[in-house]
Amino acid sequence: MISAEQALEMILARIDILEAEERPVLDSLGQVLAEDVFSTIDIPPLDNSAMDGYAIRAEDTRGASPRAPRVLRVIDTVMAGSISSCEVAPGTAIRIMTGAPVPKGADAVVRFEDTDEAGRQQPGESARPPEIGIRREVAVGADIRRAGEDVGRGSWVLDRGAVIRPAEIGVLASLGRATVKVIRRPVVAILATGDELVNAGEPLPPGKIYNSNTYSLAALVLRYGGVPRILGIASDREDVLVNRLSRGLDADLLITSGGVSLGDYDVVKDVLAKEGEINFWTVRIKPGKPLAFGTVRGTDRTGAARNIPLLGLPGNPVSVMVTFELFARPAILKMMGRRYLAKPVIEAVLEDSIENSDGRRVFARAVVEERDGQYFARTTGPQGSGILTSMSLGNGLAIVPEDEAGAGPGDRVQVMMLDWSQELWN
Amino acid sequence: MISAEQALEMILARIDILEAEERPVLDSLGQVLAEDVFSTIDIPPLDNSAMDGYAIRAEDTRGASPRAPRVLRVIDTVMAGSISSCEVAPGTAIRIMTGAPVPKGADAVVRFEDTDEAGRQQPGESARPPEIGIRREVAVGADIRRAGEDVGRGSWVLDRGAVIRPAEIGVLASLGRATVKVIRRPVVAILATGDELVNAGEPLPPGKIYNSNTYSLAALVLRYGGVPRILGIASDREDVLVNRLSRGLDADLLITSGGVSLGDYDVVKDVLAKEGEINFWTVRIKPGKPLAFGTVRGTDRTGAARNIPLLGLPGNPVSVMVTFELFARPAILKMMGRRYLAKPVIEAVLEDSIENSDGRRVFARAVVEERDGQYFARTTGPQGSGILTSMSLGNGLAIVPEDEAGAGPGDRVQVMMLDWSQELWN
Repeated sequence: MISAEQALEMILARIDILEAEERPVLDSLGQVLAEDVFSTIDIPPLDNSAMDGYAIRAEDTRGASPRAPRVLRVIDTVMAGSISSCEVAPGTAIRIMTGAPVPKGADAVVRFEDTDEAGRQQPGESARPPEIGIRREVAVGADIRRAGEDVGRGSWVLDRGAVIRPAEIGVLASLGRATVKVIRRPVVAILATGDELVNAGEPLPPGKIYNSNTYSLAALVLRYGGVPRILGIASDREDVLVNRLSRGLDADLLITSGGVSLGDYDVVKDVLAKEGEINFWTVRIKPGKPLAFGTVRGTDRTGAARNIPLLGLPGNPVSVMVTFELFARPAILKMMGRRYLAKPVIEAVLEDSIENSDGRRVFARAVVEERDGQYFARTTGPQGSGILTSMSLGNGLAIVPEDEAGAGPGDRVQVMMLDWSQELWN
Repeated sequence: MISAEQALEMILARIDILEAEERPVLDSLGQVLAEDVFSTIDIPPLDNSAMDGYAIRAEDTRGASPRAPRVLRVIDTVMAGSISSCEVAPGTAIRIMTGAPVPKGADAVVRFEDTDEAGRQQPGESARPPEIGIRREVAVGADIRRAGEDVGRGSWVLDRGAVIRPAEIGVLASLGRATVKVIRRPVVAILATGDELVNAGEPLPPGKIYNSNTYSLAALVLRYGGVPRILGIASDREDVLVNRLSRGLDADLLITSGGVSLGDYDVVKDVLAKEGEINFWTVRIKPGKPLAFGTVRGTDRTGAARNIPLLGLPGNPVSVMVTFELFARPAILKMMGRRYLAKPVIEAVLEDSIENSDGRRVFARAVVEERDGQYFARTTGPQGSGILTSMSLGNGLAIVPEDEAGAGPGDRVQVMMLDWSQELWN
């Protein structure tokens, strides 16, 4: 048997970061930046007003006070997005709105509150008065935002490797970028195997069960940013299996469920071994001991031959989800160019018991709550690997190490958090 | 001025949970369940084998040991998904694979390890031997998973109000559900206003700036599960504004940016006031003081008249993102049926200083890190509301209350976490 760390290391050694693609900015949300982004413009592009007020020459305000306003002639109005064709000469002012470029000749802005504009206008009126009284001295540069103050032309803005969040989308748009170079999302082909499987929505003949693995796997792929491609169900007949698998041979990763345990005498292992170079492992974890990993011969997007990584997960619904989190998620994140591949692990006080009967690392489905700055974990009840509702009841996996016989009430355990709360993605 | 809490309360009072819709299970990821889900089937559907082994009658194993195996005649093999037509009579056994229904007559399973099968087969052979030696006594029920053991027919499985995660998708599929009733996602129409705005990808005339608000807002809507509808840029001309706005009148929420500050004399406020019932607020927060909220007259999906909530955000890029998080996100989450509308707030030790000059609640963009079980926060640098890169540099908003003049190094501050790390959504 190999450890979970050994399995993950061998998997990641065969996984490459995918190539970059140019994408419309808004479509890149959640992808990883594949270029360093520099600004080709100044933001703001021109000196502009930080306030609604009057653009003036600072020297014209010398000695101004509420009692002795300096009266200037108002020669124009300028709004954000316009440029005044007038120049502020001594003794004149231009009415200016927030964000509007500072007109020629002006070197400061006096805000409305520091003028007598209110007394010169009818209520609700907003046209410019012919003259304006300045009630306060202002310094050169007052209430002017300088060109390039936020972002200078040529300056570094975003790092290659950053994850695109809403803020990065906004920043890219503010630089005038319509598209951006990001690592593309992996296409992950998903194949469920087993004669006993029937797809949801169909009648259930005796002896059959509904296929849940395809759906939980596709949802996990979506959640972590991949593009699922559902290959359906392959029965345990070799020709069906080969045919289904062949539809996924231009994907970036193939995930199968079922047919990889040591005791099996179905054809999945034979076919996988024939179609590529696959290793069958037993991993010292519970649930999820049997695991297959290797490559199958496929093609890339141009049709050229290429080896595609294949991850063969066990067939039990819980084992599938747990082994996906342990092995497939890091692989998908690495393909996407993510730097941090691990889920957060917290320490919690266990409130019930977890047994470890056979020296494997146990991942028990658990509910983690925070009370008074301390995390508490309790298991979701029976931990059978067919009990998928246990994944739905929990938000984390409480870990009992290989060399411990179990954990009881009051023990401190590590918990790999799958969701921070029921309220995912908030 | 009103407080942030008062503003949010008045907004949420006008926001309704949207109606339910029936969706394909996999497409419902991230939506909220609008039905209680009960199982119409037993899982597993029949008593079945927990192991690869032999289905036998427990009484036939009495006295069996490695030295004195009880030899039984093997009459059939049964695999998962099949049902044996044979019945296990005294002295006989049926070879059975994991998950296969337990045949008639059998009341226990003996795993391969407890038989002498290995000695009866050639290496690599997996056909059933004519006879099998049982090397161990087993009790009635051994290694049999009972029908309905995981989920009983008629039992409760998922709660109305639960967020659909990958585990819930898997559970629904395991019940045979192809579709599920969930609260639909809100369509959020986004309108940027301002003569100075130009869309990314176009040349930038003098005095103009690139429109970033449309993109950051659309990305935020996507992130929180809404469906953005981009209405483009409206200049400050009334007819253009009315026309653009009219394209969003069948959305579930309208969000505008710009044109709502008290000092403005542009037409946005006039038009909004004319098209609906809009309140213009000043909220005691920084950034983001001016805010408009109310309803405009629109239509629902059937074309019937209806009032649509409209949220008018300020025009500055940072103010837009902060006020979205404070006011639009909770509204969108409420529409989606989410129960927890708040972002997580943590306590951190401030490492630099935040000023609060005018008695508003300050939300400073900050980088939060955990070191030795303690959170530390430092601001992202200059906090001007035009400096959008400050949102990109940070992962949280450090809060200085209205009645405090600021916070300095070593002070404990509350931080609203926007992302738990740069590595969003892991």
